[in-house]
Amino acid sequence: MINEMGKAAKLASYQLAQCSTKIKNQALTHIADLLELNANEILDANQKDMAMAKEQGLTEAILDRLLLTSERLSSIANDVRNVVSLTDPIGQVIDGSTLASGLKLQRHRVPLGVIGVIYEARPNVTIDIAALCLKTGNAAILRGGKETVNTNAAIIAIIQQALKQVGLPETAIQSIDNPDRKYITELLKLDKYVDMIIPRGGAALHKLCREHSTIPVITGGIGVCHIFVDESADFDKALSIILNAKTQRPSTCNTVETLLVHTEIANTFLPKLSQIMADNQVILHADPDSYKILNAGVANVFAVEDDELRQEWLSKDLNIVIVDSLELAVEHIREYGSGHSEAILTRSLVNAEQFVNLVDAAAVYVNASTRFTDGAQFGLGAEVAVSTQKLHARGPMGLEALTTYKWIGYGEDLIRQ
Amino acid sequence: MINEMGKAAKLASYQLAQCSTKIKNQALTHIADLLELNANEILDANQKDMAMAKEQGLTEAILDRLLLTSERLSSIANDVRNVVSLTDPIGQVIDGSTLASGLKLQRHRVPLGVIGVIYEARPNVTIDIAALCLKTGNAAILRGGKETVNTNAAIIAIIQQALKQVGLPETAIQSIDNPDRKYITELLKLDKYVDMIIPRGGAALHKLCREHSTIPVITGGIGVCHIFVDESADFDKALSIILNAKTQRPSTCNTVETLLVHTEIANTFLPKLSQIMADNQVILHADPDSYKILNAGVANVFAVEDDELRQEWLSKDLNIVIVDSLELAVEHIREYGSGHSEAILTRSLVNAEQFVNLVDAAAVYVNASTRFTDGAQFGLGAEVAVSTQKLHARGPMGLEALTTYKWIGYGEDLIRQ
Repeated sequence: MINEMGKAAKLASYQLAQCSTKIKNQALTHIADLLELNANEILDANQKDMAMAKEQGLTEAILDRLLLTSERLSSIANDVRNVVSLTDPIGQVIDGSTLASGLKLQRHRVPLGVIGVIYEARPNVTIDIAALCLKTGNAAILRGGKETVNTNAAIIAIIQQALKQVGLPETAIQSIDNPDRKYITELLKLDKYVDMIIPRGGAALHKLCREHSTIPVITGGIGVCHIFVDESADFDKALSIILNAKTQRPSTCNTVETLLVHTEIANTFLPKLSQIMADNQVILHADPDSYKILNAGVANVFAVEDDELRQEWLSKDLNIVIVDSLELAVEHIREYGSGHSEAILTRSLVNAEQFVNLVDAAAVYVNASTRFTDGAQFGLGAEVAVSTQKLHARGPMGLEALTTYKWIGYGEDLIRQ
Repeated sequence: MINEMGKAAKLASYQLAQCSTKIKNQALTHIADLLELNANEILDANQKDMAMAKEQGLTEAILDRLLLTSERLSSIANDVRNVVSLTDPIGQVIDGSTLASGLKLQRHRVPLGVIGVIYEARPNVTIDIAALCLKTGNAAILRGGKETVNTNAAIIAIIQQALKQVGLPETAIQSIDNPDRKYITELLKLDKYVDMIIPRGGAALHKLCREHSTIPVITGGIGVCHIFVDESADFDKALSIILNAKTQRPSTCNTVETLLVHTEIANTFLPKLSQIMADNQVILHADPDSYKILNAGVANVFAVEDDELRQEWLSKDLNIVIVDSLELAVEHIREYGSGHSEAILTRSLVNAEQFVNLVDAAAVYVNASTRFTDGAQFGLGAEVAVSTQKLHARGPMGLEALTTYKWIGYGEDLIRQ
């Protein structure tokens, strides 16, 4: 079954690769319109998923991610309309020249082909990723969470209807409806037809894909992000950035999880931090040195475990670690960080430059919140995923990350000497 | 053991990432000089490998790849000096702007970190890849063929001596000397420390890496390349390009393996082809339709098997298949090609454009030999490998393919709204 889907997706991808921007945009516009026209059907399907999820006792957080309302659906439709307005990267001539041999060589931007996407209980991802793949002329095989099976089926039916309306093959966007996990493993081995795998989910899903896939996998989305407050930092400014990085939207991957504080300022800075974190219901998890200082303060404070320094809280929890130098802050980040987003708060030019040079992460900030690591914030128009690996794309991935290039060489009956 | 090597390589990579172009070039110059100064030792070590290889009855082709002479060694040293002369891509600011939020965002080119390279019996690869990794500030763990164990040990000792002379850690370039294949598998799982795996060898090695690696793998170097001669082609020009593509260096991956001939010209073109191929000792492997025509000619001709259409000959053998249309030529390439290099020989602008658009390969040529797919021919200065996958790098990979980027954001105490 998966093999047949792969074959059909590959065939569809050939047609999509030749498709004009106009037709692709028409398909996207139809999808947006049909989502609103068929809102009742989609919301009914979603209610079935919600009922099942409640029956199974899923957490409030998952229920919220799963829930669609007519407002959410309109907002998703508008996101699709936003994709229509983006520049189509396909067909772009990246560079070109006439070589000494006489070969006229150009690099043209082309679609990747077929993208496999494996994700969890967010029905919006289904539309989101389908829209981005279509815009860039890629076919997609989607495998959503089993909790959203009814909602996804309703959405996929609409996408395929829109594809049909513009004369594109319905197999351009397919979904694996069977919840059996063995189909994930089969998809990961389909290197004959699938060109890239994007997992959107937690650490376990990424690990599964890395270990089982024979197709290149874009891993990312796990953010164990740090802010280092050096001895020269402006306290008030630092507190405002830390508060923003921790509390603006705690469940996101670019939220700060661990604060590294220079030992010289620990005694004066941490009490102020304790106050502002208490005011904002943030729980602190302190290393032994900072525990002594923070325990006398007003914030809720616990002793931090080593494991807690390696994971995302995704909640209003913040680790505190005192370090003796910038070098030790960098060492801590190397050991515990996930290569996502790291920041230094400083008034020292030397420290800023050193931190930027030494820290190896997708995004490194000086006197700015880690919350900026985001496709929209970076001006990419759309966000496919946030990559924390180093090949192909790093950090927020825009439309370009769904493309590759082809070298095209024109000769006048040219042979190699 | 492999874990310790990985850890040491990662540590060395931090130092290399901060290293100036001047120091990296000094190290490379030392390597080139030491290769010539210590030629006797290296050639003695190579003689030991040669003796063992002969004892084991390895083929002439492998023996030739294994053999070093003082001329070959000088040529390798000069290749290293050529790497010195290349522009260092590290530190390049790829792009940057000030975003609406006030964030000053730039993308800086940085090394990947640690590269794992697995290759077969070519001692020149050891120096070649070490030089390219050093130039781009990457550490490397090399795993050469067991046939070159003595030669590689002598070369690695020289590279490490050069590193020491400029104050760089010797662990920047390490090699796995133990021929046990289990160390390959261990290297492929070392995702904690290794950022990219480059296999340089045959299809089996690439498959092994794809299946076992938890690290991104650059696959490539397998070229099942086609030339399609359409009904409008100039026969003499076509014959000269085909001859070049097949015989200029048959053992390379950009050599043509299958000729697709439009049915309209088969009766007139194939006899001419038969003559020129016979004159150049090329053996033809023909599909049923072309067999009938070619069997009456002068060339050595066999009936082609389906398997032979899917593999590289790497020798003076050429498959011949008659197709009824450009579309069927494209279909054949989709089914049998490896996504390396494909060419059309035509006088028709429409056919040229259609072929270029429809064929999905790293390089697509119009009226030029497939032999051009090569880092030096493409003006890249150096060639790390030829990628036939679509992510990160496609086709000949230059120095840039050994780099990634880091987003650096400067704020004036900036929070996300």
